Amino acid sequence: KATKDFIIFIRDFNSFVIRTNTCGELRSAHVGQEVTLYGWIQYQRQGLFLVLRDFQGLTQIILPQDEAHSHVKKLLSNAPVESVVRVTGIVSSRPPGQENPKMPTGDIEVKAETAEILNSCKKLPFEIKDFIKKSEALRMQYRYLDLRSFQLQYNLRLRSHIVMRMREYLCNLHGFVDVETPTLFKRTPGGAKEFLVPSREAGKFYSLPQSPQQFKQLLMVGGLDRYFQVARCYRDEGSRPDRQPEFTQIDIEMSFVDQAGIQRLIEGLLQYCWPEERGPIVTPFPSMTYKEALADYGTDKPDTRFGMKIVDISDFLRRLDIQFVQNALSYPHGTVKAICIPQGVKCLRQQCITTDAVCDATFMKHSFPGWCLSDFPDSKIAPSHYLPSLLQCSALGNLRLESADLLEAAGLVLRDPTAFHFLWVVDFPLFLPKEENPTELESAHHPFTAPHPSDTSLLYSDPTKARSQHYDLVLNGSEVGGGSIRIHSAEQQRFVLEKVLKEDSEVLSHLLEALEFGAPPHGGIALGLDRLISLIVDAPSIRDVIAFPKSFRGRDLMGNAPDYVTPEELEPYHIQVSWPLAERGKEKL
Amino acid sequence: KATKDFIIFIRDFNSFVIRTNTCGELRSAHVGQEVTLYGWIQYQRQGLFLVLRDFQGLTQIILPQDEAHSHVKKLLSNAPVESVVRVTGIVSSRPPGQENPKMPTGDIEVKAETAEILNSCKKLPFEIKDFIKKSEALRMQYRYLDLRSFQLQYNLRLRSHIVMRMREYLCNLHGFVDVETPTLFKRTPGGAKEFLVPSREAGKFYSLPQSPQQFKQLLMVGGLDRYFQVARCYRDEGSRPDRQPEFTQIDIEMSFVDQAGIQRLIEGLLQYCWPEERGPIVTPFPSMTYKEALADYGTDKPDTRFGMKIVDISDFLRRLDIQFVQNALSYPHGTVKAICIPQGVKCLRQQCITTDAVCDATFMKHSFPGWCLSDFPDSKIAPSHYLPSLLQCSALGNLRLESADLLEAAGLVLRDPTAFHFLWVVDFPLFLPKEENPTELESAHHPFTAPHPSDTSLLYSDPTKARSQHYDLVLNGSEVGGGSIRIHSAEQQRFVLEKVLKEDSEVLSHLLEALEFGAPPHGGIALGLDRLISLIVDAPSIRDVIAFPKSFRGRDLMGNAPDYVTPEELEPYHIQVSWPLAERGKEKL
Repeated sequence: KATKDFIIFIRDFNSFVIRTNTCGELRSAHVGQEVTLYGWIQYQRQGLFLVLRDFQGLTQIILPQDEAHSHVKKLLSNAPVESVVRVTGIVSSRPPGQENPKMPTGDIEVKAETAEILNSCKKLPFEIKDFIKKSEALRMQYRYLDLRSFQLQYNLRLRSHIVMRMREYLCNLHGFVDVETPTLFKRTPGGAKEFLVPSREAGKFYSLPQSPQQFKQLLMVGGLDRYFQVARCYRDEGSRPDRQPEFTQIDIEMSFVDQAGIQRLIEGLLQYCWPEERGPIVTPFPSMTYKEALADYGTDKPDTRFGMKIVDISDFLRRLDIQFVQNALSYPHGTVKAICIPQGVKCLRQQCITTDAVCDATFMKHSFPGWCLSDFPDSKIAPSHYLPSLLQCSALGNLRLESADLLEAAGLVLRDPTAFHFLWVVDFPLFLPKEENPTELESAHHPFTAPHPSDTSLLYSDPTKARSQHYDLVLNGSEVGGGSIRIHSAEQQRFVLEKVLKEDSEVLSHLLEALEFGAPPHGGIALGLDRLISLIVDAPSIRDVIAFPKSFRGRDLMGNAPDYVTPEELEPYHIQVSWPLAERGKEKL
Repeated sequence: KATKDFIIFIRDFNSFVIRTNTCGELRSAHVGQEVTLYGWIQYQRQGLFLVLRDFQGLTQIILPQDEAHSHVKKLLSNAPVESVVRVTGIVSSRPPGQENPKMPTGDIEVKAETAEILNSCKKLPFEIKDFIKKSEALRMQYRYLDLRSFQLQYNLRLRSHIVMRMREYLCNLHGFVDVETPTLFKRTPGGAKEFLVPSREAGKFYSLPQSPQQFKQLLMVGGLDRYFQVARCYRDEGSRPDRQPEFTQIDIEMSFVDQAGIQRLIEGLLQYCWPEERGPIVTPFPSMTYKEALADYGTDKPDTRFGMKIVDISDFLRRLDIQFVQNALSYPHGTVKAICIPQGVKCLRQQCITTDAVCDATFMKHSFPGWCLSDFPDSKIAPSHYLPSLLQCSALGNLRLESADLLEAAGLVLRDPTAFHFLWVVDFPLFLPKEENPTELESAHHPFTAPHPSDTSLLYSDPTKARSQHYDLVLNGSEVGGGSIRIHSAEQQRFVLEKVLKEDSEVLSHLLEALEFGAPPHGGIALGLDRLISLIVDAPSIRDVIAFPKSFRGRDLMGNAPDYVTPEELEPYHIQVSWPLAERGKEKL
């Protein structure tokens, strides 16, 4: 199933090496040929045969039983599993009845004539076949063994293939230029999640950027017209599950483009690179405003593979005499919303719906202590008052997702595991109140986002109401991309930085200056490659589509990074470690 | 000249945007069509016409002179040079005799009907056409303006195109897998040039690796079979001319391959990606041993575009009665070597050959104080005694290059500027005496290099004499790549690390362990992409093929990186700055 795609595009796996074939390609048509294979011993049986494995598949090798070849038999019989061997022999049909239709090479076997042990494998710390069941920490420590598994080989090869197709589409079909931008740069305003890199100038640090945002905009000012990069990005968030300190995005920027142009580009890109075995995807992708997404799904990244939308049942409830509901409805803009869960009564009545889903919304806890796990058939109700807020909506959105998980745990099929639902979410607000101080504003995404064409005057009169030209791409309820049309007027950019965000624009003076020297209108997008690939291959974690991922604490468990360094090594960088008191003892010489 | 290559591969520069054409593509065939162009005003003349520029070329725009379009004329006439405009109009033939055969669009002009100023450019700090003459520091500060030049657009687009062709060759034709490896890793032994990245664990640091060496070998252990990556690498060398703290290499590794296999792969790769306009390259590339290179050219990266080889003239001189020469020859292995410089007497007699070229060889200065700028016709002589040493050879090699420069300055054509001479240099020594302590050995390249198949036993008996399976790729006297067949036996790797190099192998324990679990024989190479592209486009510096290069002090002059950070920003990383006494005053709050 996995190999089909590759055979179409890849000509020759055996160029420049001495093997004649890979372990996955021999068929009946090869019978009678002498072949030389290289691979790992997958398993062997009683000096009779063994199975040789490489990246492309398995081939059954028959050990010679005659006296003249006794040394070959001995050599191969004694080689431990996972040893690397060369086998030369003749391709033969398997005896009638012994074909294995489940194996692509199941019609043939190779009768070994000569062999060589290239590397004997010492006893493994575990059985390879049990490996998958072992803890992820062990698999990470022996990542090079884990990489031999079918699944990881498939994931990494599909990733490589998809990226190659993206490049063909962008470079060869649409004239994009692949430009590498620096990763040693300087802190951006609010760049609290940027790793620092000490330089040899005392007190001065580089910073590893979270994205090439500034550079891609400067490339547009430089007239590059169409830029893309498979860009390594960095984000220091401490420990967070399923995040990586370094990650990859497909980074794109275009001049003279509008929001629809970027959207059509990305739809074409995904259609072009989409693996055939995952079925076709339909374009254009549906689109939804931020407001609709929050109202109907309680999140800005709705999983549209299933219904159970949030509905407003205020009008229905207004007719009933339930005190706490009437109370809620009596507030200005008071509403009660519900989710209708098909077979909810049957499947969920006995279930323990954790109240966290609703209660962790701070707003609800503080502003409306009463909430209700309803007894109405097929519904869960969370009452509300005041304007529909993000917090309140997200409580219902979480409830919706949690209910879906519970329904599926109970055996219902709610989300087709082979379905891919792409969705554009658009018309985001340009600014949001700061969490720690709601009277101040911060950018909903980043300060370079242009206002919605209809809301340009609102930017100056009432920025809280201005929508942006930001767009998110959502796949099956995960955000897989985001971008915007950028501000290309220096005056507007300065207004946003200084008057709305009250930030010191000095640190961005190079960008502001660039906008004054003939910056074209431009916009772009970045796709999160790790997340996208993990959804395509249905992997539980992005770690499964990265060759050498870090643990959720940001550690490399194989090579043991990060690690201590000596004070002498720090000297050229004019830094020293400030040891927390409790850890003084750990200090190394 | 530059565009030819791109038109073949790139379909549509106008997809997803509102322009109908780029400024480089209109021809006589378009006459009569209404077109919409977007671009920068290159120059304008007296309200009559202007020249619009984009990444692909120039188009002459005729301003309307009739009353009905007076606003269009006014708008465009008043727009400063380098402003960004939209022009819609009708393509017309130029009046007979006014065609410009030097301009691809020289047969036509566009009669403007409507126009729009998208961004007005403020007065530039210099005239764009003088820009190239300005200091490089100014060009770096306004890099986004420099990027608009034909030369930088060409360099970056050609780079993107060449890399894309390399990917097609590796991925699509030969089954390589593009795998991204981490850049946040840990210090490698002897990794003094690795940047450090503080982590949130007190005293622990990541390191930015100089190359993915360990990872690519581990991918081979993991059965990936054929890996490549366009890899970002880091090297902190302080200030060095024409080096960059971050640079890019085409990183390749294969299993079950020998030296010849890698060489043929690279020759095919370069032939496949080579830009047609630079003429064909012939494969296989010639090969030369390290010993021959030193003996004949006095360097391990010979420029073979011209002769002037080093020759041994001892036998000739032995017959003459020159005291200091006889003296030199009387030492064991005493030799006198010379370079025959065609027209040297004529061209160089009046020239000041700096004696540094010869004298900076410490060995010569200390061991043989007399040396001779010969009066023999057409030769320069540097006498020697003792075994031919690298130092002595490199003195002659430098003399050869310096003489070539002087000859060319005098008007002789020695090196064809359109010639590309690739050369493999092979059979390097495996180890070299440490400069600071010649009784100890260090790896000539890196400790993972396998010994030459003929010298395996020498590795154990007399490692100083063992040659390696390292190979360098040289182009016109510059090293553009290097690689080796690697050690794949844990026992041999441990011997090299512990017994020969006397290093603590603990820090590489993960790699040693991996070699014990069925590591296949493997080898690879890395090409220095920046250097390669700069040679192809004949750029004076690698900075000319990098979008946002750093200055030779490692600074970004546009964005001003590296920069100071606050002590609060350092806190999560448990580090503080050790201010040198003289700089305390600079400390920021």
